[in-house]
Amino acid sequence: MSLIVQKYGGTSVATPEKVKHVAKRVIKTKEEGNQLVVVVSAPGDMTDDLIELASKITDSPPAREMDMLLATGEQQSIALLAMAIYAEGHEAISFTGPQAGVRTNSVHRKARIQSINPDKVKKALSKGKIVIVAGFQGATLDDDITTLSRGGSDTSAVALAAALKADVCEIYTDVEGVYTADPRIVKDVKRLDSISSEEMLEMASLGAKVLHTRAVEYAEKYDVPVHVRSTFSENPGTMVTKEVKDMEGAIIKGVTHDKDQAKISVYGVPDTPGMAYKIFKAVGDAEINVDVIVQNVGRDNKANISFTVSGTDLKEALAIVQSVGKNIGVEEITADNEIAKVSLVGVGMKSHSGVAARMFEALAEKKINIQMITTSEIKISCVIAKKDTEEAVRAIHSKFLG
Amino acid sequence: MSLIVQKYGGTSVATPEKVKHVAKRVIKTKEEGNQLVVVVSAPGDMTDDLIELASKITDSPPAREMDMLLATGEQQSIALLAMAIYAEGHEAISFTGPQAGVRTNSVHRKARIQSINPDKVKKALSKGKIVIVAGFQGATLDDDITTLSRGGSDTSAVALAAALKADVCEIYTDVEGVYTADPRIVKDVKRLDSISSEEMLEMASLGAKVLHTRAVEYAEKYDVPVHVRSTFSENPGTMVTKEVKDMEGAIIKGVTHDKDQAKISVYGVPDTPGMAYKIFKAVGDAEINVDVIVQNVGRDNKANISFTVSGTDLKEALAIVQSVGKNIGVEEITADNEIAKVSLVGVGMKSHSGVAARMFEALAEKKINIQMITTSEIKISCVIAKKDTEEAVRAIHSKFLG
Repeated sequence: MSLIVQKYGGTSVATPEKVKHVAKRVIKTKEEGNQLVVVVSAPGDMTDDLIELASKITDSPPAREMDMLLATGEQQSIALLAMAIYAEGHEAISFTGPQAGVRTNSVHRKARIQSINPDKVKKALSKGKIVIVAGFQGATLDDDITTLSRGGSDTSAVALAAALKADVCEIYTDVEGVYTADPRIVKDVKRLDSISSEEMLEMASLGAKVLHTRAVEYAEKYDVPVHVRSTFSENPGTMVTKEVKDMEGAIIKGVTHDKDQAKISVYGVPDTPGMAYKIFKAVGDAEINVDVIVQNVGRDNKANISFTVSGTDLKEALAIVQSVGKNIGVEEITADNEIAKVSLVGVGMKSHSGVAARMFEALAEKKINIQMITTSEIKISCVIAKKDTEEAVRAIHSKFLG
Repeated sequence: MSLIVQKYGGTSVATPEKVKHVAKRVIKTKEEGNQLVVVVSAPGDMTDDLIELASKITDSPPAREMDMLLATGEQQSIALLAMAIYAEGHEAISFTGPQAGVRTNSVHRKARIQSINPDKVKKALSKGKIVIVAGFQGATLDDDITTLSRGGSDTSAVALAAALKADVCEIYTDVEGVYTADPRIVKDVKRLDSISSEEMLEMASLGAKVLHTRAVEYAEKYDVPVHVRSTFSENPGTMVTKEVKDMEGAIIKGVTHDKDQAKISVYGVPDTPGMAYKIFKAVGDAEINVDVIVQNVGRDNKANISFTVSGTDLKEALAIVQSVGKNIGVEEITADNEIAKVSLVGVGMKSHSGVAARMFEALAEKKINIQMITTSEIKISCVIAKKDTEEAVRAIHSKFLG
């Protein structure tokens, strides 16, 4: 008997019909003789609808109250899925994140899981029940409801799998696994049978929306095998594993893009030590993730610093930078959310010379201007104009994977 | 400085605009120098919408999971109201029922409050915050979410007021208080300045929907002064108090009606001891409230028993009675939900002769047939055909209060 954690996203539980479909799929796994914990997200667009609803009350809702509001989405999903399983003659029990023992820090809307006490889940499993858990949410030690960052249900699932020492964590999505690029943009994409968690981490953080970044980090840290597969077919998907199996094979795993990017540029920063620290300390304290950072010193001995954040963080990040900028005396601050990031991902890329050059060539051939460049051991990213995203992805995919 | 508990119903928080209106009203009370706890219901029709949603999944959802689903309604209200108060520059904090320390028994969908630990609410009040609490919900000792029966937010408010030893519990509604009859049916109704909790109990249980029955019971038991008033005006409403002030005045307080009634008739019950017990024990065990009970013994020494339950309980009650009926051997069981109950309420009514006769006369004059009659110290109720409800209310009101 295996212990399996399955996670179904919002599109999989968007309507009563889809909830019933998931129930059947869950029951099938159970009937194959497995113990089963199912993590679900809020139905369809509910989270967005709730954010919209809050915006009709106020422009700047307190984060604690947003979490109180948003947590109702997953709570509805778990109740409906449990009902659908009952209707098929099986026993299920639903738990909110707090009830399932998910403890987080108190950074509302971007909380991090600190511990999971799986006693309640284990007890229900031992009674033969299918356990349904609300993803995306937890509670502080003070019992305040928190939510993880967007897409956090993946993290909930992997963290639960780790706490329960599950045999596998299956992430169900509307695609059949991890592809070499977004199938909506590139026609001849290939599905990857397996990918290392390190590569997946880059793929995830670079905008391949199949798996949430922190979920991959968690999977790597606690050695949870993750299987990304489709809600709507029985085909095998992509296994995310610790080891890289095909080191000898194609080093390029895929092309990713991320349109949820915005750039803040700070011009005329005094070129004295600690300036960058002051800016990024303030941004980091607000739990805003900074992605690409580029700094140059101009002829006037003043530095220009550009960096990217997610589009949703732009407003807050800009306010922080303007406040810090005033204190340290900068010349100008600009913001641009008409940008995107395209990236090439693959282990060992750095050791193969010429990869970066070929990527820049692919963009140059399409006359796409590169605004920022950043590289790591397993990826090369370029920030470009948002309007050029699709053409850039196709050009790079065709050059390396076509 | 007074401590005030205010309760706003679903219509008061149905839209973002209405939530903002409630926020202003709440802040006004706070600025008058009071400590304030606000209990809110689910917005508008949300509870009905969720029940409808569940019905698309299954005909018989498990009660625990329905509670999990329904509790999201109030949770959305409290978050939105807290945001609206913040937007006006005041500090608020929302708590779900469980967070506010509301402990109930484990009868899902009809849970009864067993205790309230108000420490968290008190702590927030002492920090000067306006505390927003989700009505209608609580948690068992096992931390399972429960809901009280429909309209239970009134009970939540009064119970919190009792636990906090509040100076008054204000129940805000869409009418200006308690009337001598339903203003939608009778034109020349009068608003009552005050009513005894005993009378209110009859008024509430008889279908005057301004205040939930258990709320009045709670108010009487714990001596909580309750003020029923309008969300949309500043006028004083009706005070529900322990003592009756105007014993000498008009003894008739009002005419009420309840269309949410259904009748089950059991014919040919063996006239031996314990038969009625068996039937009503089984119905009671399912936490179904039985209202009017009438029993006659016919010429064949078999008894006919009729009783009423709320329309929503009919299906379940009928199934129970059919099962018991099979065991004890009855001849026929029928159900009728085309009935309604009209009642005349007032303290000391029994000591004034002729009140019942005049009520029956009012109905006879309109050729309205009386199916069942029941009386208590302070009320006379008649079960009639549902279609005659409005005419009956008008006839009785005109005879006693016109």
